[in-house]
Amino acid sequence: MKIEIIMTGDELMCGLTIDTNFRWAADSLSGLGFDIKYHTTVGDDKDAIFEALRISQQRSQAVIVSGGLGPTPDDLTAEVASRFFEVPLELNEMALGILEKRFRERGMELLEINKKQAYIPKGSKILENLWGTAPGFQSDKGNTVFFFLPGVPKEFRAMVEGYVLPELRRRIGARIIRSKLIKTFGLRESEVAQELRGLENNHVTLGYRSHYPEIHLRITVHSETDEEINRLLTDYEKEIAMRLGDYVFSTEGEELEEVVGNLLRLKKYTIALAESCTGGLMANRITNVPGSSDYFERGVISYSNKSKEEFLGVPSSLIKSKGAVSAEVVESMAEGVRILSNAELGIGISGIAGPGGGSADKPVGTVYVGISSKQGGTFSRRFQFSGTREEIKLISSEVALDLVRKFLLNDV
Amino acid sequence: MKIEIIMTGDELMCGLTIDTNFRWAADSLSGLGFDIKYHTTVGDDKDAIFEALRISQQRSQAVIVSGGLGPTPDDLTAEVASRFFEVPLELNEMALGILEKRFRERGMELLEINKKQAYIPKGSKILENLWGTAPGFQSDKGNTVFFFLPGVPKEFRAMVEGYVLPELRRRIGARIIRSKLIKTFGLRESEVAQELRGLENNHVTLGYRSHYPEIHLRITVHSETDEEINRLLTDYEKEIAMRLGDYVFSTEGEELEEVVGNLLRLKKYTIALAESCTGGLMANRITNVPGSSDYFERGVISYSNKSKEEFLGVPSSLIKSKGAVSAEVVESMAEGVRILSNAELGIGISGIAGPGGGSADKPVGTVYVGISSKQGGTFSRRFQFSGTREEIKLISSEVALDLVRKFLLNDV
Repeated sequence: MKIEIIMTGDELMCGLTIDTNFRWAADSLSGLGFDIKYHTTVGDDKDAIFEALRISQQRSQAVIVSGGLGPTPDDLTAEVASRFFEVPLELNEMALGILEKRFRERGMELLEINKKQAYIPKGSKILENLWGTAPGFQSDKGNTVFFFLPGVPKEFRAMVEGYVLPELRRRIGARIIRSKLIKTFGLRESEVAQELRGLENNHVTLGYRSHYPEIHLRITVHSETDEEINRLLTDYEKEIAMRLGDYVFSTEGEELEEVVGNLLRLKKYTIALAESCTGGLMANRITNVPGSSDYFERGVISYSNKSKEEFLGVPSSLIKSKGAVSAEVVESMAEGVRILSNAELGIGISGIAGPGGGSADKPVGTVYVGISSKQGGTFSRRFQFSGTREEIKLISSEVALDLVRKFLLNDV
Repeated sequence: MKIEIIMTGDELMCGLTIDTNFRWAADSLSGLGFDIKYHTTVGDDKDAIFEALRISQQRSQAVIVSGGLGPTPDDLTAEVASRFFEVPLELNEMALGILEKRFRERGMELLEINKKQAYIPKGSKILENLWGTAPGFQSDKGNTVFFFLPGVPKEFRAMVEGYVLPELRRRIGARIIRSKLIKTFGLRESEVAQELRGLENNHVTLGYRSHYPEIHLRITVHSETDEEINRLLTDYEKEIAMRLGDYVFSTEGEELEEVVGNLLRLKKYTIALAESCTGGLMANRITNVPGSSDYFERGVISYSNKSKEEFLGVPSSLIKSKGAVSAEVVESMAEGVRILSNAELGIGISGIAGPGGGSADKPVGTVYVGISSKQGGTFSRRFQFSGTREEIKLISSEVALDLVRKFLLNDV
């Protein structure tokens, strides 16, 4: 089944808003094995929207249209759809009832202008929007089914999951497809591909893509029966895990910081950070995870040498003799923050994120990460990265998280 | 002139890669007043690419195609373009010369497979790629000009700036268009629109869009002469600044953290942070700016109460009586980190990012920000936000940066 996605909205066309709906939908749909052939974005322009609908109908069996269902004059989708389906727009009683209910729940008055959202092309199926006011609708033309959904990401996603995916599954019938996302860090894309050579066959396809600084891998299996497909997925996941070893950090869609958080919680460990070049990014990532206060004790961003000495007890003689970016100093930072906070693990990061500050023996991109643990002593690693300031910060936080992950996995 | 953008690549269709080229190109082109009508994304599929080219030629005067120019079998663009233009693919001597030069410079051997990149539809104009190996090319069909560019963001952007924009400007001729991006924080989109009512006319258009948590405004002016257009832009910028006051934080494209950094540098102030609910995000934003070590002294992420007491000297009795999320505690945090670091400014942030941890009088989204300055004493503000954990962290870092900005602007 060929699927096509059409996004509408001037804000998408002038570059001010990034279209996160498409990426999300593409990921969900390809995860179910659906083939998305085209993605078109058009502004709030009747002719452009009409043209996009007309073309999509000629080449796709399912079309998801997002945006333009609101109450303002630049919301044109229902009007254009009515012209496209050659049916009148009519006040849909069900849509009006839903709208009235939604406004009542929110204690808002339903103005005449809001009723516009209840005018739907005649004969369409209403798709109730539980997360906002604009109802969606579904209609067929020829052999193509069209889903019209609001553009607000939360509403769009919920309605793709609630209506579009089940309907598409119903329409394709028997063939069973399942897929899984496997996230790796530490190998390049070509190295991952090399390790997995010969794994693809009639039942299994692999797609691997760079998601800086990680490489993500999607494994898709298809088969006739539910048992068969579960067996295939389990087998291939095992095989991949064996070939890639601990470069694989996630098989359930988790972020690296979630994986680290789960390991910390499992071991009942707390962690404290002393960051220099990453400037708080590692702490920010760790604290993006709900409930991270259970294991994240504190962080220090010791940008100045003075703060390294005062906060963390790094001897000023050590900074003078070895430099702030050195194995000795990150180890001292890691140990200092661990002792100070009484956490099980202390992490120190220091490096040169650039664009200035590099030297011949420590060029921009030189980064040291130190780990100090209550039981296991203190060690550090040196890395050499390249890229922009933000890329170097990001990959530095990544190697630090990954070192913690590996340390926790081996720390039995 | 109607412009259309076609992106190719399976990685874009399965949701694993987010398309940053389109957003960037849309922003650059609309900044010059060009009207982008369609944006199509297709996978690595000959028929799909051909179909996209065919349709674009019927409705646009300029088409930018990105991706598919590499040496591997799934790079199909040149082959499809040759079919579309109805000319043979031929080994282009200029393209080959550029390729050979590029490989020589990098000390790499030019393999037979790499020569594929020098096969270009006959009669095309070669667009040299100074940042990678794949040459681009330009060709006309009917009244439409096509630009074929590599998909690697750095190369794509450089080539849009180097070739596409000058060529499009040349083609539209006399009409002069200029635009400017104005960034605001603190008003809703409808409030900004309300304040700017009546400002648009034949010469000036406004486009405002939400860029959470900021509202960005693009002002586009057009006219016949260079002097006129500069006068118009200056006049309208002044008018907008007057109407929106200090809700405007940037008129040169700077991020809020850059604006704050520039003000700190101007005043020769240093800053130190004590973050709780933002978990390092404010420090991360400040240190994303190159050279921020000049004014960023240190940061503390005091997630645990113990760290608030130990690091910052917040009295444990205060935390007990007022709660960790309170005006008194953020003021004590701000003052504590300022005194500790001897910085001119100390900032304290504490709040409930959720999803757990809320209560009746301090629900999820309650955030306090405190500012303490050497000269000006200490004060704090309470905010109430809603959204996901990451949204609450983001808007909290934004209000804190914005409070610092306003404090520095008024602190004469």
